[in-house]
Amino acid sequence: MRTTPEIIRAKRDGQALTEDDLRGFVRGYTDGVIPDYQAAALMMAFFFRGMETAELIAWTDAMLHSGDVLDLSDIPGYKVDKHSTGGVGDKVSLILAPLVAEAGVKVPMISGRGLGHTGGTLDKLESIPGFRTDQSVTRFRELVATLNVGLIGQTSEIAPADKKLYALRDVTSTVECIPLIASSIMSKKLAEGIDGLVLDVKTGSGAFMADPNDARELARTMVRIGKGAGKDIVALITDMNQPLGRCVGNSLEVIESCEILRGRGPADLRDLTVALSAEMLVMAGHSTTITEAQAELQQILDSGAALERFQRIAEAQGGDPAALADYTLLPTARNRVEARSERSGFVTDFDCAEVGRAAMLLGAGRARKEDAINPAVGIELQVERGSRVEAGEPVALIHYDGDERLAAATRRLLDAIVLADDAPTPTPLIIDRID
Amino acid sequence: MRTTPEIIRAKRDGQALTEDDLRGFVRGYTDGVIPDYQAAALMMAFFFRGMETAELIAWTDAMLHSGDVLDLSDIPGYKVDKHSTGGVGDKVSLILAPLVAEAGVKVPMISGRGLGHTGGTLDKLESIPGFRTDQSVTRFRELVATLNVGLIGQTSEIAPADKKLYALRDVTSTVECIPLIASSIMSKKLAEGIDGLVLDVKTGSGAFMADPNDARELARTMVRIGKGAGKDIVALITDMNQPLGRCVGNSLEVIESCEILRGRGPADLRDLTVALSAEMLVMAGHSTTITEAQAELQQILDSGAALERFQRIAEAQGGDPAALADYTLLPTARNRVEARSERSGFVTDFDCAEVGRAAMLLGAGRARKEDAINPAVGIELQVERGSRVEAGEPVALIHYDGDERLAAATRRLLDAIVLADDAPTPTPLIIDRID
Repeated sequence: MRTTPEIIRAKRDGQALTEDDLRGFVRGYTDGVIPDYQAAALMMAFFFRGMETAELIAWTDAMLHSGDVLDLSDIPGYKVDKHSTGGVGDKVSLILAPLVAEAGVKVPMISGRGLGHTGGTLDKLESIPGFRTDQSVTRFRELVATLNVGLIGQTSEIAPADKKLYALRDVTSTVECIPLIASSIMSKKLAEGIDGLVLDVKTGSGAFMADPNDARELARTMVRIGKGAGKDIVALITDMNQPLGRCVGNSLEVIESCEILRGRGPADLRDLTVALSAEMLVMAGHSTTITEAQAELQQILDSGAALERFQRIAEAQGGDPAALADYTLLPTARNRVEARSERSGFVTDFDCAEVGRAAMLLGAGRARKEDAINPAVGIELQVERGSRVEAGEPVALIHYDGDERLAAATRRLLDAIVLADDAPTPTPLIIDRID
Repeated sequence: MRTTPEIIRAKRDGQALTEDDLRGFVRGYTDGVIPDYQAAALMMAFFFRGMETAELIAWTDAMLHSGDVLDLSDIPGYKVDKHSTGGVGDKVSLILAPLVAEAGVKVPMISGRGLGHTGGTLDKLESIPGFRTDQSVTRFRELVATLNVGLIGQTSEIAPADKKLYALRDVTSTVECIPLIASSIMSKKLAEGIDGLVLDVKTGSGAFMADPNDARELARTMVRIGKGAGKDIVALITDMNQPLGRCVGNSLEVIESCEILRGRGPADLRDLTVALSAEMLVMAGHSTTITEAQAELQQILDSGAALERFQRIAEAQGGDPAALADYTLLPTARNRVEARSERSGFVTDFDCAEVGRAAMLLGAGRARKEDAINPAVGIELQVERGSRVEAGEPVALIHYDGDERLAAATRRLLDAIVLADDAPTPTPLIIDRID
């Protein structure tokens, strides 16, 4: 057994660590035997030296086994989840989970909360009156077994080493390290007891990975870890240079999700949701090809059956199913005002993170983990990339309660919409596929 | 003001830190406001990114001002010290300090203790019966003012930030970073209130820097810091592929030093001491050229005046001056035994650190800071690089008290002496000079 300084030195000098080194380190750190300062030094060494595939797999496995691992093997059928690296207006999970469940594939979905400019699935679900995401594991199993889908938050017992290490990385500037990001995500997803995983790795101004090549590298790393753990896994690299759909804000996003679930709503959101869902159907062996899967999913959306599935799962988790048909039953902001463009031109780009921060200022998001959010407020964009606007025309409808931060949020939103004289060339929503 | 994570991130990403960043960090860390884990992350970032000259100077100055800074400006005359990066059998300070003082230049010398395979000046001095290195600052000033020389240990108030940081680096594998090593040494030496500094940067199998290029880089870095602080500074890069002189062990090294001080003793030790001392005389403006200085120093050694000066300083610091003439008054080991070569050949090399560890096993050195040492024991080599030995002939005289670890020490010593059929080509003792 190498000592902790020897392990740090080896990684610092570019040597690969052994499975024993990595497991011992994660165990020691979780148990408090290895202090934060040694972990901080190792994290910085990982930042500079990276991890080989064998290290990645062993490290992730050690993180995942630092806590509870869900075993859903007694529930018959293939179980598949989707994970997004986080964006602005990304309500795909709310649509995809009932849609794939309605197609007959089991989706045990464990989601997170929003932080900073990115939203979180749990916050969006909880804007449905009565909806509880803190279901027990027993209840979660029942939901997956009977409705093909359960929508819950991570319990504190899942990958505690990751939680402790992430807090340390946050204050030691060692977050931006692709192997550590990949293993942090994968340790939590692999603890869910799934057979397969579809990843939506976002890139662009609203994504954690602004550069598509970094996004590809992150995707490849996660795919390697997933395969190493014996899971089916595929990643789509998708564009996050403009908000997904038109709405940013929790109950507004629930409404937009329901629109898609009844066969309506914006094309970009529908297309991406169907693309990710189709990967899940093929992975599960439910469909033979992506094309076949997409046709089936489109038909389910058009039939309204997916919305009914969403209503059933909402009801099963304590929520009011009527609110998914009658949106006036959802939290509604007291005021609405149009944000108007100050000049004419084509919308060529968004500073997408800034759109998220404008919504956060209104109360839709949280700057710190402990902040409360307001489910009713948000931004309803009226333009997208390529839209032509004239000076004085509205570009968005702002839903707000108090007006203390309205001016700042509006300023931020307008500044985040880039206008130019020439129309932009279209860019693809799905940039790459990695398996 | 940047936050601590911003400072870590900037260095991590290869940006130079500002003087404000560095001073703020050192102050915050010394005061306990910045925790060990952030310091550990920054140290690892320094390991990979290094420091620019302006950063080095600001960092060292911040470290030095974290504690007491000695002001000797009221003592007339130029004050100069020598610092060695540590080796085996390196007793140069014991000879150089009285020698330079006898020539008329002031030497306020603050030394350290031995650790691992390297010996320490304080330990050697304290093998002289009664000699106290823990003199007060007031008494130290008196000694320098009246005898031109004082020989003391570092007080705990000198550069406490360096002490705290070094302990952290030791357990986070961030010791081997040339800018940090250089600033650690220089922050302590610059706190001594000296006008000039001569550095002996050792390289070879018994040195911290085995590779001469690393030693040069360390020397250049220290010289840059010294000049940045407005001091005169020069570094000699010297060979540590065999012990300096013949003796390794505290009272044995005192004896060998006294032999040099009376114009006798091994040539390598005398030559290096004279070379370093000559740099000090020229730096102080006492001599015009190195050649002139060397001639004067040689004459002082031959006259016995330097030994008398050593006796006076020993007496002034509580030691028995008679022991420096009658070596039987020094601690003497109970037993002596010859270590005999197991084969014939030319001595072509030493694993010099292993010779130091063999002496440590006998009790001459300490594995950990808190260990006690035995001043009497040690190794008296009877061969040097180029010596011809026949199988069965003695290569060293081992001075020991108990025989528990004698076999292990002898084994280690014999294994550390490399024999070959052909005589080695001679190598220079002084490899380079950097100013």
